[in-house]
Amino acid sequence: MNFKISKKEFLDALTMSVRAISNTTPLPSLSGIKIEVRDNSLVLISSDSNISIRTAINNNDTNTLIINETGEIIIDARNLLEIVRRIDSDFINFELIDGTLVKIYGGNSEFKVNGMKASEYPNINFETECDTPFKLSTDLFKEIIDQTIFACSDKETRPVLTGVNFKANDGKMTINATDSYRLATKTIEIGSEQNFNITVPAKYLSEVIHSIGNEKEIVVAISPQKISFIFGNSIIDARLLDDTFPDTSRLIPANFNQTLKLEARNLVTAIDRNSFIKSDGRNVVRLAISGNTLEITAANQLSQSYEEIPVISFEGNPLEISCSGKYMIDAIKAIDSEEIIIKFSGELKPLIIIKENDENLIQLISPVRTYH
Amino acid sequence: MNFKISKKEFLDALTMSVRAISNTTPLPSLSGIKIEVRDNSLVLISSDSNISIRTAINNNDTNTLIINETGEIIIDARNLLEIVRRIDSDFINFELIDGTLVKIYGGNSEFKVNGMKASEYPNINFETECDTPFKLSTDLFKEIIDQTIFACSDKETRPVLTGVNFKANDGKMTINATDSYRLATKTIEIGSEQNFNITVPAKYLSEVIHSIGNEKEIVVAISPQKISFIFGNSIIDARLLDDTFPDTSRLIPANFNQTLKLEARNLVTAIDRNSFIKSDGRNVVRLAISGNTLEITAANQLSQSYEEIPVISFEGNPLEISCSGKYMIDAIKAIDSEEIIIKFSGELKPLIIIKENDENLIQLISPVRTYH
Repeated sequence: MNFKISKKEFLDALTMSVRAISNTTPLPSLSGIKIEVRDNSLVLISSDSNISIRTAINNNDTNTLIINETGEIIIDARNLLEIVRRIDSDFINFELIDGTLVKIYGGNSEFKVNGMKASEYPNINFETECDTPFKLSTDLFKEIIDQTIFACSDKETRPVLTGVNFKANDGKMTINATDSYRLATKTIEIGSEQNFNITVPAKYLSEVIHSIGNEKEIVVAISPQKISFIFGNSIIDARLLDDTFPDTSRLIPANFNQTLKLEARNLVTAIDRNSFIKSDGRNVVRLAISGNTLEITAANQLSQSYEEIPVISFEGNPLEISCSGKYMIDAIKAIDSEEIIIKFSGELKPLIIIKENDENLIQLISPVRTYH
Repeated sequence: MNFKISKKEFLDALTMSVRAISNTTPLPSLSGIKIEVRDNSLVLISSDSNISIRTAINNNDTNTLIINETGEIIIDARNLLEIVRRIDSDFINFELIDGTLVKIYGGNSEFKVNGMKASEYPNINFETECDTPFKLSTDLFKEIIDQTIFACSDKETRPVLTGVNFKANDGKMTINATDSYRLATKTIEIGSEQNFNITVPAKYLSEVIHSIGNEKEIVVAISPQKISFIFGNSIIDARLLDDTFPDTSRLIPANFNQTLKLEARNLVTAIDRNSFIKSDGRNVVRLAISGNTLEITAANQLSQSYEEIPVISFEGNPLEISCSGKYMIDAIKAIDSEEIIIKFSGELKPLIIIKENDENLIQLISPVRTYH
């Protein structure tokens, strides 16, 4: 095995591969990246058995990869990444010199690393069992993930809530994330007549988002146990969450009593200013609206805050409601609009935040009972 | 109590004051800043009983402070800092409204904070018992601390080594810091005929460095139990470490067998490239020098590195020596010179690093025994 590769391309591929490496793997070979040097390409495989990544660099006209001798080996992932990152040269030379001993060099520096035989790597199946993969622009894919993923639960008490749910029928896909106190729900057209209802761990979606790079499109293929994301020369397979995702559609109130329209920035800065006022580690803001101003207050044993911001319009009876300041800020940022609409249906009922004339993205937040 | 103050000036003063606030104080009043509003100045006092800070803002021509009513109160330090930081206004209004309840407001925001009576604050004595304070330019003061402080121990096994030692006689001051594996020693003229030998906790020196701001000079006054740093309208008192600092002068070898001169940058980048190769959490580099090149290697169970760098000159017999890579980098950075001199007196004897023709700053590093 002997090849020479552009540092930049190798580093990009390794940075992606390392995303599948777990710090605590029972199988020693899985702390490594399997490097397959073929006649015309270099293939990197990494896995923690729940997420698996395969990425290839092809031997092409641009001479960023020169293969002198084929072969296979496993090299400790983080060690390899450190070495390639630190070599001060545009090209990296990689050479098997004895058994599983590899020499990696460039510039003035030379590293020798003890690898493992490629045969010790488990068989990772990157085949999909999906007849109807669908394609998304990466911009849209990133958008739907960014607008929902933050609402996932970070607690393992109900594992299915640590994932984002994708549900498709009639050419529409609904993307849901909830930690049971808030819900982000997005609907898009996918133009293919498939039906599925799957939940993908949020952390794996985040790895996919960070791996896409400049690719314009991503192909999504859903198999019974896994989801495959295919882009450029790479494929990322992620194991699905087993449990049934709760039916979130009935969380959204059918009728609203109050509609508030205001500038998003005013509300975000006001809540942000109060965010240090916490009780039991949590910042709760109280909104009081009766006419042309929205009063925002927060309080704990030590401090109280008070701020008024103007509203653009308000319809309905006066209302006071309390909710998590962080959830409000997360939701408003996901809406990403200068003006936002907040709809209420009572002090103890969830409120929703949307962009005017756009119900394809709904951010729902449950209120918090307060006693001040 | 009622005053209006420039946000910037108040924030600067509070940021300094908070440096003396401990997260774990047995005395509730010490989690607060004592605010004394006098006829012509605002005085802030904070302390964790080992370090105490007093800083004043004077009522001056620039109208950055307008005092309407004098008074005293204690306000929770971190809470007050958060509030002042977040108020979106050039001026902050501060008003006692009832008992110990304070209103702090500016822009659209208003905060109410429950304080404590000033009488609950312990008496902090900022008087010095020093008849012969001496003055340093803050540039020189920062330099001597930066060049030595990193060599202090971060372990409490020998508390005196967590401090920087200042020893003066015959108009010279020697500044020493050591963790017993390395030593940084700096000598300066102080032009005053005093004798002292004191050790100041490194963390307090660091607070002083970060508090000085743009002041040009600092006055240092040494009392039997404490050291006082006086600059601008501020004074920082730090309790001294009790134990006797070890006599470090005999650690420096009297004679050297080899003298190596090289470009600092070459050595730093080579060591830095190896720094990920660790055994037991520690990166040890081996230097081998025999003529015009210095070989730098590092090894652990998984990897070995090899790099050659050119030297400017070398006198003496060939030598191989191992030492901590981090210590080398720390020492070379403190020397802050394009070219450095390293002197050796044997594989098992400390090496020293200096700037050519300048022995006022000596960085000493003990070698590490290795068996490769």
